[in-house]
Amino acid sequence: MENGDSSEAPLYLKVAHMIQHQIRDGAWRVGDRIPSIRSLCRTQGVSVSTTLQAYFWLENHGYVEARNKSGFYVRVPATEFAPEPRFQNLEPAPTEVGVGDILTKVLRAVSDRGKVPLGAACPSPALLPYHKLNRITRAIAQKDPLHSSYYQFPPGSELLRRQIARRSLDFGCSFAAQNVLITCGAMEALNLCLRAVARPGDVVAVEGPTYFGVLQAIESLGMRALEVPTHPRTGMNLDVLEHSVKKHRVKACMVMTNCHNPLGYSLDDERKKSLVDLLAKHQVPLIEDDLYGDLAFDLVRPKVAKAFDRAGMVLLCSSFSKVLAPGFRVGWVEAGRFRDQVERLKFLSTIATPSLPQLVVASFLESGGFDRYLRRLRLTFNNQVQATSKAIAKYFPAGTRLTRPAGGYLLWVELPKAVNALKLFRQALEENITILPGHIFSASGHFQSHIRISCGYPWCDDTDRALLTLGKLCEKQRR
Amino acid sequence: MENGDSSEAPLYLKVAHMIQHQIRDGAWRVGDRIPSIRSLCRTQGVSVSTTLQAYFWLENHGYVEARNKSGFYVRVPATEFAPEPRFQNLEPAPTEVGVGDILTKVLRAVSDRGKVPLGAACPSPALLPYHKLNRITRAIAQKDPLHSSYYQFPPGSELLRRQIARRSLDFGCSFAAQNVLITCGAMEALNLCLRAVARPGDVVAVEGPTYFGVLQAIESLGMRALEVPTHPRTGMNLDVLEHSVKKHRVKACMVMTNCHNPLGYSLDDERKKSLVDLLAKHQVPLIEDDLYGDLAFDLVRPKVAKAFDRAGMVLLCSSFSKVLAPGFRVGWVEAGRFRDQVERLKFLSTIATPSLPQLVVASFLESGGFDRYLRRLRLTFNNQVQATSKAIAKYFPAGTRLTRPAGGYLLWVELPKAVNALKLFRQALEENITILPGHIFSASGHFQSHIRISCGYPWCDDTDRALLTLGKLCEKQRR
Repeated sequence: MENGDSSEAPLYLKVAHMIQHQIRDGAWRVGDRIPSIRSLCRTQGVSVSTTLQAYFWLENHGYVEARNKSGFYVRVPATEFAPEPRFQNLEPAPTEVGVGDILTKVLRAVSDRGKVPLGAACPSPALLPYHKLNRITRAIAQKDPLHSSYYQFPPGSELLRRQIARRSLDFGCSFAAQNVLITCGAMEALNLCLRAVARPGDVVAVEGPTYFGVLQAIESLGMRALEVPTHPRTGMNLDVLEHSVKKHRVKACMVMTNCHNPLGYSLDDERKKSLVDLLAKHQVPLIEDDLYGDLAFDLVRPKVAKAFDRAGMVLLCSSFSKVLAPGFRVGWVEAGRFRDQVERLKFLSTIATPSLPQLVVASFLESGGFDRYLRRLRLTFNNQVQATSKAIAKYFPAGTRLTRPAGGYLLWVELPKAVNALKLFRQALEENITILPGHIFSASGHFQSHIRISCGYPWCDDTDRALLTLGKLCEKQRR
Repeated sequence: MENGDSSEAPLYLKVAHMIQHQIRDGAWRVGDRIPSIRSLCRTQGVSVSTTLQAYFWLENHGYVEARNKSGFYVRVPATEFAPEPRFQNLEPAPTEVGVGDILTKVLRAVSDRGKVPLGAACPSPALLPYHKLNRITRAIAQKDPLHSSYYQFPPGSELLRRQIARRSLDFGCSFAAQNVLITCGAMEALNLCLRAVARPGDVVAVEGPTYFGVLQAIESLGMRALEVPTHPRTGMNLDVLEHSVKKHRVKACMVMTNCHNPLGYSLDDERKKSLVDLLAKHQVPLIEDDLYGDLAFDLVRPKVAKAFDRAGMVLLCSSFSKVLAPGFRVGWVEAGRFRDQVERLKFLSTIATPSLPQLVVASFLESGGFDRYLRRLRLTFNNQVQATSKAIAKYFPAGTRLTRPAGGYLLWVELPKAVNALKLFRQALEENITILPGHIFSASGHFQSHIRISCGYPWCDDTDRALLTLGKLCEKQRR
């Protein structure tokens, strides 16, 4: 076997190398389930503990991953990916955002269903439990026929708020139902929080890069974004953040602590706590966006920063758009000590959230099986991310760098300097491929050679061809 | 008959007085259909033209009203109502609104279903076509199962936008479907329009009184409201408006041209045109709220000011909340030359409007019968308004004044000066009755002795008792 010295190696290593070899040869491909421990024991005549040791070795070396109760699956070893993007530690300054015009064009393009969908952060409709949601919808139309005739005034459906309060245990909180406010998606929640804690002209600290919607919302409210340098694995540079808070009189800080969009990292508990403590010390509210938290690939659902909030200064926003039903527009916020302001602003923005989607989501959660479903969904996205990462490493020019998402389905790609991402976006569009150019993720014009690739759709030949095409377009720009 | 001189009067007057007498005696009561023209001809041995003349006399004197193709019905003669509220012509000045705290209390109180609902402007759920809406909902869950899995990105469902474009002919416009933007209710539409045409610190001209939600939205966006004196029949004083536009550099004007909330008037075409021309001359965008336009009691649906807009300066907002389904939160806006800004802000506020309610409303409109349904609904509300008006005239202290709504189901009551409306609101709440105190409808602290009464629910003994109680509470305050 490999290196020629396995014959001297312990038995478990021989077994591991054998599987490793097969994976490299393509006998087992990304996403395949390798033989069960029991069957390998039988076919190789080795003990269960030897087999387990072999599988753990493969797992530790990134060849396979354990999936809860269903065995070991082949993953793309990280060593075969492009290296990770670099961390750029620049001095931040508050700016007006101003990429709105391009954004409008980008958004019209990415919502065109005829294109290969690597742009918008939409999960494939086929992956979502729409059959069950429709069954529940029909049942509620029958059982609760007056749902459409009433305003579901803020804070929204009590059934749903109770379900969210129960689920809050999973991410380290213990909400009271009456403190949860239902919104028209997480985007409304984020807007309400911004308006509750800051005024026009105020400075809001954000990650760089961060979700373009947040940057645009800040701009549209007449606030200014301060882009804090953000490491692709460890998030915001807290020293720079603290320095900026003092220097620029920051009025709010907005972060995604889990499965960051676009960087994909999740902060560890230590860093979450440090962030919360630092901001609390300076009396700066933290608006936390946990939109993708349920899609973290870890076996244990990561906590939110709100779990470490003792001062009521964290406003936690999320929604069911990325895991259940984008078309339902059901989001929520637990706004800590800003609850009353946020609730009042909710009434003034949209009066109420539509009743039926709230009732359907509540009933879906109540019926059980959500966690099992989420587990499957996470695995699917993980596979899609792995397959896409591998293809990018294969097709894109040398010098390309790539994130290792801790969850979700978004990849952040740093292209060689010579490649202009906006130009690439336009060229890709002509080839019927949508991607997002990096600089819409920046308040200060950074990331001109970065793109975001969504892996929300199941891997298929079209995806493979589209990534090949993108690679060629990059190559062409370099010449 | 009455006055003893009918014997000398023309024949038609004799017939008219006879019916008048019967109505006064209670033989025909409010809402009753009086005999058809044909049957009266037969029973009284008079000609069709005589009968018609008699009925027109009764109509002109406010005893009956013609209803499209279904005959003449008894209405409460206006002479038996309390007189109309007075017009207060005060010099306007921009102000910060600041009634938020009371408003929160008021809103929590009025959304309590255990009370006699004279507060919130909600139609009775029983009056709305929820059976048909549920039937359509079930059909769409079956026919279009992926509705929940997609974002319905702005401008929203094309099916619905096409239906709205078709209906725009009814109110004097001819919209293109691509210029209609679907929103989460009219309230989101109004917010988006405000943000598209004005910045924090800017002055927005509004009616005094006007819908409290609009005042609060202006405040929450950091803008200032300029309350233009508003006549209970003819609307904003246009001379004062023009003067204010010049003096205070007004950046937008916000009006309800039909079935005003709370005053109930509809502007005639002449006035709508004057308003549009005046503002266009000064380059001030007009945000028009036509929320109750479909509920005008006239046989012909009144036009909107937008019908007279040649410069693209009118942003027309409305919704289906008051006529179909408050819980659906389906509103829309045709924003004229501000279309692109409003669409972009929509994305940044809530990303998309929920898909299912849009599809259900579109299908409901497409299925026909909406106009027939609206006709019935208008009649019902008209009767409820008449019955409530009569009871107020009967139970409330002398000096009480009352609007004559041209549509909708809201009454604006001017109480004797000694009565404090906020105190009355609190006292009423203790008696399990909700009303709205007048000064939340003012940016500048006016209308302390006014209340708004909603007639959205069918008249019943509880309503009668509640109005009697309110009358007594007023009386007590006067002493």
